[in-house]
Amino acid sequence: MDPRFDTPPSRQGSDSIKWGRYAGRDVLPFWVADMDFAVAQPIQQALEQRVQHGVFGYAAVPDSLKQACVDWLARRWGWLVPPSHLVAVPAVMPGVNFAVRALESPGALATPAPLYGPLTQVADNLTLPLHRFAVAAEQGWDLDQLERALQQGARTVLLSVPQNPIGQRFTVEQINALGALLERYDARLICDEIHGDLILDGQPHRPLALTPALAQRTLTLISAGKSFNLAGLPFAFAIVADPKWRQGLKRVLQGHAPASNVLAMAATEAAWREGEPWLEALLTYLRGNRALMSEQLDGIEGVQLHRTDATYLAWLDCRALGFDHPARHFERFGVGLSDGSEFGAPGHVRINFGCARATLAEGLKRLKAGIAAA
Amino acid sequence: MDPRFDTPPSRQGSDSIKWGRYAGRDVLPFWVADMDFAVAQPIQQALEQRVQHGVFGYAAVPDSLKQACVDWLARRWGWLVPPSHLVAVPAVMPGVNFAVRALESPGALATPAPLYGPLTQVADNLTLPLHRFAVAAEQGWDLDQLERALQQGARTVLLSVPQNPIGQRFTVEQINALGALLERYDARLICDEIHGDLILDGQPHRPLALTPALAQRTLTLISAGKSFNLAGLPFAFAIVADPKWRQGLKRVLQGHAPASNVLAMAATEAAWREGEPWLEALLTYLRGNRALMSEQLDGIEGVQLHRTDATYLAWLDCRALGFDHPARHFERFGVGLSDGSEFGAPGHVRINFGCARATLAEGLKRLKAGIAAA
Repeated sequence: MDPRFDTPPSRQGSDSIKWGRYAGRDVLPFWVADMDFAVAQPIQQALEQRVQHGVFGYAAVPDSLKQACVDWLARRWGWLVPPSHLVAVPAVMPGVNFAVRALESPGALATPAPLYGPLTQVADNLTLPLHRFAVAAEQGWDLDQLERALQQGARTVLLSVPQNPIGQRFTVEQINALGALLERYDARLICDEIHGDLILDGQPHRPLALTPALAQRTLTLISAGKSFNLAGLPFAFAIVADPKWRQGLKRVLQGHAPASNVLAMAATEAAWREGEPWLEALLTYLRGNRALMSEQLDGIEGVQLHRTDATYLAWLDCRALGFDHPARHFERFGVGLSDGSEFGAPGHVRINFGCARATLAEGLKRLKAGIAAA
Repeated sequence: MDPRFDTPPSRQGSDSIKWGRYAGRDVLPFWVADMDFAVAQPIQQALEQRVQHGVFGYAAVPDSLKQACVDWLARRWGWLVPPSHLVAVPAVMPGVNFAVRALESPGALATPAPLYGPLTQVADNLTLPLHRFAVAAEQGWDLDQLERALQQGARTVLLSVPQNPIGQRFTVEQINALGALLERYDARLICDEIHGDLILDGQPHRPLALTPALAQRTLTLISAGKSFNLAGLPFAFAIVADPKWRQGLKRVLQGHAPASNVLAMAATEAAWREGEPWLEALLTYLRGNRALMSEQLDGIEGVQLHRTDATYLAWLDCRALGFDHPARHFERFGVGLSDGSEFGAPGHVRINFGCARATLAEGLKRLKAGIAAA
């Protein structure tokens, strides 16, 4: 029990798209990936203090924010990043799109399936060919499929690590094998590590760029947005060891990114500087929510709950129920989920368990009623 | 006298780039275009209230914000815009760059000179040819030069209206002549009207898209950023009557814009809904600052102050002083200005008078010492 997470502010009638989708209907939302929790107290204070000043003119990204990021990565991820490798981007997904634009010859793109939709959408946005390769909980990436994609011209691989939507970290062996493969084909990696602070089993996140074979060929996107629940105050850094890619990214961003948002930067800096105790409490709470999900769903006929070891997203295989769009079915039972088709995996649903335990318990009750009625 | 503007909060040691450039030096800043004033009380309250909620997840652009914009344009500019013509963009300049990207055949670009640098920079950003044509206070745009540019392949004209840096509105006759010319060559217009609320002589702003010949060929960018001093909380709308261009803009923005910033949206909505009395008081104050500038600079040998009729930016012709970069000279006398070379007009300086009158008075004293010493 933790009142910070058990009794969050109501988001009904707020600007939340998560709750707004079902306004006036008895459907509890477990879809889009933000949490229902108020921010950590140091973030709240930083926002109040910056608002208090009252003047909100042009601001640069302060060195203190870059340093807070570098310190955070050293302390939490064991990754020593020179501040000069950081490039501020408006958010993670613009960072990914502009990072591909910054490459002279991106070749075809390759993304795993299932995957967070906007990462796969990059190929459409930039009218580049796309290859898919499988990813699964135990096996990790299907590197045979990825190798075929590389043979067919893929040169830029986009990953989500830990993986959204399947909620998985990857082993050192899996990462090393990926590194060897990308090195062999001289391919680039763009890695969205926004969920890196949300590893539930207590192990540190291992950024892919720490692998020697990947260090120079990887562009990593990081943000406090997921771990500190700042999706509506977006800010992110791209970390780029390759100086040519870094300069290219700055060049393609020119004119296309808004001026820095002073409140998003204040919130992000407070998160990285002072948010650690809150994050640890959050991880404890999320582990409790994960346990409740297992308790309620393990062994239920017709569905298979993957074990989430990172993120607050659970991945439920409902293919045995026979629905093309299982989320539509469950919505009729009062539970709002993300459909697997959004991630390239029909027959699954993604459940966002970043919410109060009582809300989750009610949602699971409804979900089970939906399963039983299938 | 107005304490809201006479005694603003100190920005020294804050995140302000305007003040940060000269930290630790006795140079007063009158360069980058933000004002030293605290925001209007309704904006302050809206920020405090939204911060108070504590949860900052994903939010859509609310209909109420679009409506506030539409109401503002109807009331202040006499422009009736269907809400469906609005497209949210991260800020004005990203809006301009993406608006050009959204065109199938933008052709060459044409921009006036002098002009706010980032608008001219669009051609470089997108590797498009660029033509320049003159603009001046009384004469307005040099339409003969613009016609030659159109004959040479320019098809997309980028304007700042009212004009940054020369601080000018345009007459109905000038606008109509521009409309006839662009119609004749079937050219497009992208019009940055962020200064539209800062007309000092009390007349309403006349959006260029109100001219029948321009209505369907114009994309207008508007924002509360300049008039309500929200450069560090950026948000803007593109207004696009042409449905194909509008769809194209939404398509090129996909993946490239961050999620909506909930605090920037709260501030912007409060500005348009409740900011009018503050804006009127601001305009009165800026007129007083303008009068002080005339009083101090008119008739001084070696410089020619253009009369600003809109914006809080004054344009000073210093060519007679013989400096390549007059701003560098004046910096040695303790006054930080924007050099005309940034706008394509060497030998001039731009003076930002959006500051407390006492600060302006001290700056003008230093400026005059610099002129006398030239």
